[in-house]
Amino acid sequence: MAESKGASHPYYPKDLSIPHYVPNDKGLVELLTVFFGLICVVLALLWFYMRKTPHLKGRTGTKIKILWFMACGLIHFVLEGYFSVNHRTLAGEQTFLAQLWKEYGKGDSRYITSDPFTVCMETITAFIDGPLAFIAVYAFVKNRPYRHVIQVLLSLCQLYGDVLYFSTEIMDGCSHGVLWHPLYFWFYFFFMNILWIIFPSLCIVESYNVLVKAQAFQDSKSSSPGKKR
Amino acid sequence: MAESKGASHPYYPKDLSIPHYVPNDKGLVELLTVFFGLICVVLALLWFYMRKTPHLKGRTGTKIKILWFMACGLIHFVLEGYFSVNHRTLAGEQTFLAQLWKEYGKGDSRYITSDPFTVCMETITAFIDGPLAFIAVYAFVKNRPYRHVIQVLLSLCQLYGDVLYFSTEIMDGCSHGVLWHPLYFWFYFFFMNILWIIFPSLCIVESYNVLVKAQAFQDSKSSSPGKKR
Repeated sequence: MAESKGASHPYYPKDLSIPHYVPNDKGLVELLTVFFGLICVVLALLWFYMRKTPHLKGRTGTKIKILWFMACGLIHFVLEGYFSVNHRTLAGEQTFLAQLWKEYGKGDSRYITSDPFTVCMETITAFIDGPLAFIAVYAFVKNRPYRHVIQVLLSLCQLYGDVLYFSTEIMDGCSHGVLWHPLYFWFYFFFMNILWIIFPSLCIVESYNVLVKAQAFQDSKSSSPGKKR
Repeated sequence: MAESKGASHPYYPKDLSIPHYVPNDKGLVELLTVFFGLICVVLALLWFYMRKTPHLKGRTGTKIKILWFMACGLIHFVLEGYFSVNHRTLAGEQTFLAQLWKEYGKGDSRYITSDPFTVCMETITAFIDGPLAFIAVYAFVKNRPYRHVIQVLLSLCQLYGDVLYFSTEIMDGCSHGVLWHPLYFWFYFFFMNILWIIFPSLCIVESYNVLVKAQAFQDSKSSSPGKKR
């Protein structure tokens, strides 16, 4: 991608000092195709496995949700985990994941400059949300009784982090990217993050209803009020 | 409190520009006594009310937890709500709540300079966690089936916000306060915030166990596997 005129890097605001920055040698299409392609392969294998799982038969919605959790786990643990560990140096690196982050950083330079909020939020996302997402996959595939509590914990962590992600950048005047740019603003910053507002919100509402129903059922069957918690 | 030598304000780092700062005219003891005194009055009234609630008889732990939720609701909605609405101007204000924040800011100047993360996190705390805490009080006093889902939602919001609060400041080198100061660091910054790591963590563990048990109970009674979610 073309760099901003007069700056030694393509990030905003233009006066950022990123002396170790090295431009990507891989193109946008290659980066996105390989990354999302690999995720799609894993999701396809999981879908194939779930077709043989008796209690998931006819439950397309649940299976799509499990795919969502798997995609989250991979993105959180691998991609965001890489950022969490390598954020200080990745502007000068040429690994595949570093190049993905250097590309994404054109929409939000906080990923290039080790912004404290961004690093801390992404560290939680990678190493708390990531494992929770894999546990959620297991819990729903195996129909474990903790499946909806895990769904609430995961989804609320995702939602909280993402609301802060948007709101801090808005409060900063969206100064770390190119406002209204079709690729950097709308696709990277807006679309790739609004997903983690929409789906976690839906998951929280679903689990709320399921868990309240289960609690009401147990309360109604509880003969001894002293046993209620 | 004494101001730092050579600075026109008592906040760190000393080169912060806070031209509208006006020193408090109320002392530390008065501020803390009145604020915590008022909270204690409300908690005492609630305790008195709960003594007459049949299903809470002999359940001291639950009653203490309800007091915790009420204290959270008051602190989140009133104190942190005031900050969220008035953060830009409070360094120059002399209202009671502004003076409390000006005092607290000696332990963390991000509250005086409208730091974007701090403002966004406190806004969520005030207007999401605050109402959730009041709903939790109601839900446990009335033994509603949504009580533990609300407890999880509230406690995880509190925990997530507080983990970010600590971690961003640590990543910033604890530069917004006086490191190791007995009052500003240990009491304001550490003690007044570690509470929202400890209690929400305990609440999440408790609710996890209760909700998983309820879900397992319902799953075991569910005769039609097709009805499982």
